[in-house]
Amino acid sequence: MTPTHIEHIGIAVSNLDEAIKYWENVMGLKCYNIEEVADQKVRTAFFKIGEVKIELLEATSPDSTIASFIEKRGAGVHHIAFAVEDTDKALNDAQDKGVRLIDKQSRKGAEGLNIGFLHPKSTLGVLTEICCK
Amino acid sequence: MTPTHIEHIGIAVSNLDEAIKYWENVMGLKCYNIEEVADQKVRTAFFKIGEVKIELLEATSPDSTIASFIEKRGAGVHHIAFAVEDTDKALNDAQDKGVRLIDKQSRKGAEGLNIGFLHPKSTLGVLTEICCK
Repeated sequence: MTPTHIEHIGIAVSNLDEAIKYWENVMGLKCYNIEEVADQKVRTAFFKIGEVKIELLEATSPDSTIASFIEKRGAGVHHIAFAVEDTDKALNDAQDKGVRLIDKQSRKGAEGLNIGFLHPKSTLGVLTEICCK
Repeated sequence: MTPTHIEHIGIAVSNLDEAIKYWENVMGLKCYNIEEVADQKVRTAFFKIGEVKIELLEATSPDSTIASFIEKRGAGVHHIAFAVEDTDKALNDAQDKGVRLIDKQSRKGAEGLNIGFLHPKSTLGVLTEICCK
């Protein structure tokens, strides 16, 4: 795998509207997109800082993975997404090196990206997303 | 506060040598610096991806904040560091907006940066570092 940059940092929040206010008023960033990703049961808000996006994630259902993350660990950083040229190739590469995959194949995520997740048990605790346009 | 970019992502690891191998062999990044920060009781390893650094943090003492972080939450993302023009000014700005500070004034961190931390209870769970050269 040869990631080119960090595409985004995913942050689990309990209340998206309150979180947008914090990131705008305190951190000085500007929310440029709010999007619901139905199959992931999340509502997301995006900010840009340099080449990296901040993606806030609010659960839209109690059985969303974001809801269970917050229940277990509290709000905070949920995942780091690395941009690659080809998500499926990168997933295969990682599996060949012994990494357990959450997604065996890429799927569509927020902002139309092709995404796939590596399992945090194989990545020293960092929930790792691989993505490409 | 007007951060220009994400300076680094701090990741707590149990074993620095094992973690360096993972980030080099699986994630395809190259460790360019290993540094001990005595007053923070950590050994750090740095990688660069685009404009962002990955900073791995291993505790050098059981009373390091990294040791207690891992004991409570396990290894994984510890903090996000935002680059600003003036750390002390940004800390003051944040305090004026009601944010609780861990550091009232900047101090020297790894790689000679002037750093200061905001308290995660005030930042929706994201341990936030502010830093400048």
